[in-house]
Amino acid sequence: MTAYTFSAGYTDLYQLSMGAVYFQEKKQDRPATFDYFFRKIPDGGGYVVFAGLEELLDILEDLHFTPEDLAYLQLQSFDPAYIEFLRGFRFRGTLHAVREGEVVFPGCPLVRVEGSLFEVQLVETLLLNILNFQSLIATKASRMRAVAPDKELSDFGLRRAQGPAAIMAARAAVIGGFNSTSNVYAASRYGIKVAGTMAHSFIESYESELAAFRAYAKARPGHCVFLADTYDTLHSGVPNAITVAKEMEQRGEKAQGIRLDSGDLAWLSKAARRLLDEAGLPYMKIVVSNQLDEFVIKSLLEQGAPIDVLGVGTRLITGYPDAALDGVYKLAEYDGAPKLKLSETIAKVTLPGNKSVMRLLKPDGCFAGGDLIQLTDGPAGAEMRHPYEPNQRLGLAPFRLEPLLQPVMQAGKRKAARQSLGDIAAYVQERLNLLPAEYKRFQFPHTYKVGLSQQLYDLRNDLVGQHKKKFD
Amino acid sequence: MTAYTFSAGYTDLYQLSMGAVYFQEKKQDRPATFDYFFRKIPDGGGYVVFAGLEELLDILEDLHFTPEDLAYLQLQSFDPAYIEFLRGFRFRGTLHAVREGEVVFPGCPLVRVEGSLFEVQLVETLLLNILNFQSLIATKASRMRAVAPDKELSDFGLRRAQGPAAIMAARAAVIGGFNSTSNVYAASRYGIKVAGTMAHSFIESYESELAAFRAYAKARPGHCVFLADTYDTLHSGVPNAITVAKEMEQRGEKAQGIRLDSGDLAWLSKAARRLLDEAGLPYMKIVVSNQLDEFVIKSLLEQGAPIDVLGVGTRLITGYPDAALDGVYKLAEYDGAPKLKLSETIAKVTLPGNKSVMRLLKPDGCFAGGDLIQLTDGPAGAEMRHPYEPNQRLGLAPFRLEPLLQPVMQAGKRKAARQSLGDIAAYVQERLNLLPAEYKRFQFPHTYKVGLSQQLYDLRNDLVGQHKKKFD
Repeated sequence: MTAYTFSAGYTDLYQLSMGAVYFQEKKQDRPATFDYFFRKIPDGGGYVVFAGLEELLDILEDLHFTPEDLAYLQLQSFDPAYIEFLRGFRFRGTLHAVREGEVVFPGCPLVRVEGSLFEVQLVETLLLNILNFQSLIATKASRMRAVAPDKELSDFGLRRAQGPAAIMAARAAVIGGFNSTSNVYAASRYGIKVAGTMAHSFIESYESELAAFRAYAKARPGHCVFLADTYDTLHSGVPNAITVAKEMEQRGEKAQGIRLDSGDLAWLSKAARRLLDEAGLPYMKIVVSNQLDEFVIKSLLEQGAPIDVLGVGTRLITGYPDAALDGVYKLAEYDGAPKLKLSETIAKVTLPGNKSVMRLLKPDGCFAGGDLIQLTDGPAGAEMRHPYEPNQRLGLAPFRLEPLLQPVMQAGKRKAARQSLGDIAAYVQERLNLLPAEYKRFQFPHTYKVGLSQQLYDLRNDLVGQHKKKFD
Repeated sequence: MTAYTFSAGYTDLYQLSMGAVYFQEKKQDRPATFDYFFRKIPDGGGYVVFAGLEELLDILEDLHFTPEDLAYLQLQSFDPAYIEFLRGFRFRGTLHAVREGEVVFPGCPLVRVEGSLFEVQLVETLLLNILNFQSLIATKASRMRAVAPDKELSDFGLRRAQGPAAIMAARAAVIGGFNSTSNVYAASRYGIKVAGTMAHSFIESYESELAAFRAYAKARPGHCVFLADTYDTLHSGVPNAITVAKEMEQRGEKAQGIRLDSGDLAWLSKAARRLLDEAGLPYMKIVVSNQLDEFVIKSLLEQGAPIDVLGVGTRLITGYPDAALDGVYKLAEYDGAPKLKLSETIAKVTLPGNKSVMRLLKPDGCFAGGDLIQLTDGPAGAEMRHPYEPNQRLGLAPFRLEPLLQPVMQAGKRKAARQSLGDIAAYVQERLNLLPAEYKRFQFPHTYKVGLSQQLYDLRNDLVGQHKKKFD
């Protein structure tokens, strides 16, 4: 059966090429530290929901090269001794990370990976692949949850997803606040509530819509959401749904609702609600689908559309329009020495050293709108520096500092029990509640401040200066 | 090891719910026909490259429910007899499809799936998931190939991909015209040329850039593409690459090239080319990467940038900006009778009946800019009708008609040998060469005409009329 496996071969060739050089030079076991962070929030939003960590840890705990990987690499002109080294490879690195579900901001290290140079370099691609995508989708889902706080949100995206991305995306959608998925495979794998109704083709395969609804009610009486727009929503679909729901009542059963999949969903949902209520079926819910995203959902609910469940497809599952989070993974320390990557723009110079992150909290516990990056073994100091604007500083005295990076993996083994999806999703909402509204609006949200401790600021500038001197 | 499997459980719940009704009513084996088609070309382009078929056929040939699928479905209130039916399920349907790599247009049936009602309904989600995504990426890749006809194009997207979507995307990129991928797993799986250089972190882990290049040259002399922008491209990276390349020449070795990953790639590539040539290293290639897409590539080459290899990441692997192809799968025939889905807009009414597609060719064999949809057992007729504009007709006399749908699977078994990726990729270029330039331009491409035979036009209108009468 066709399957895709997250083996150690799920990586870029250059990780293995660099590894071959390290191996030949016997520096593969020297200690190194990398940071994962992103630079730009998707969709012009004001925050990102960090997701994918638990799944990444699962994969890292068992990471190895398969016989197929090794057979293939033998053909790529690698040294036989290196292939043997790869055969014995297991990931034994140590990870500190923000909690999965944390609300996070550009420039802030979200995962710190420490271990041997070979292993921490190898996992770059895998880590980026999983965290970038799941964070993208969890963020998107949270935007939809924000505009529909008390509705059921269901992932209907499998058919429009980027192939098997749908599976991870269903997980990430739940983290962002979705309740269910139509994706049976993902529901089974991750323990997500599974949802679904019927297709137009189902109704077309009967001689009439009424016959189709009756057949469904007979076979699946506990799961009747009648698709109402195959022929004519208000003159056929809803009246037939009412007829069958009334017949079900005679048998002591209750229909769940109707689904609207086309037309003006605001107008149709109001008219359908009226018909259902007039028929004495106030318990029947209205499910809508068709090109929904956070803007359409917001508009529908602002118009007072009496919608109970929203099925969201393409624009959730692909993270449309941005479709990617630009997370990167940069060397911060090698063999005990801090490292950085230069750039002509100071904003793109990476931050050297082993770093920690502190969230600034107001006395009431709400987020103050800033994260401080400091050296792990250094002081926070009295003020936070803007990363590159020399005149911008923020006194830290009014704030409580909450450490964000926690140990999650030690020498290749999980440090704590796996968190459930439900716990992660609850944490997202808890943290979003602490974030002031101006960071959550869709248009031109307020910019959250991520700054440096004076000591880190100086270290970065010193290293930049040392490099610059070489070319002066 | 974490893996994602394309089992029969890789579907939407509603397929299984409808199946349960069909099973209870004993209509699961009645014959049905579905069509796969899309409505909108991504990125405002003028064509789509159809991709994913061979992989779909592989999956369908072996499709079944895993024990995990069945255990999960047993918890979903399905009848035990239905679960047993699912346990024995194998796909035995028959598929006609356009050849993988065909250049295709909106509204045209690309795959016709015939079989039992249960099986053809079940595979809807899987088929859409695979064909929509691979066609999206193959189309995107072909746009990049079009502006860089004689360059090496390499997929560098794994880290920014939508999780495991990267694997299928690497395959689809080759179909669209890419030469290689950095993705070791995909390269191994699909037999794609694997490519890669080195990361900035590699260079930072040495005391100097020169030491890093020397170490790489020593360990991987046949694979030396030196990353030149870690510190200062023209004052450090390129001079150090030249130094090491000259040292390699002394040992009878040849460096492959340099890679530029930041800055103004047009300006830097010209300056770097000059330095390499002046040093007597005309054979060293210039590889560029960093936020490339078809528009950036076109601009770079129009500026005369002497680039040999382009590594493309995010915007290839996610199909940015559209990120999805809107392909759908609609019932065309059930139990011998033609079926359609109504809509208030005639353009969205589906086409009933068992249909074939003919491409209109000019006498010289080039595409005439039109595809004719006709009933499989009916005549093409003398003219092609616009699907819904009653006054638009096109006489067919001047054209040769080329049938596009060919049998690819019969009763669950492949009809022909699997095509190689290389053959599919060659077919794409062959077919694109037959498509006039005005359909291939990026801005406001000419609209390709997809029309109906008179007989199909009449059948569709008759069925619409019959349905309408019910509500008059």
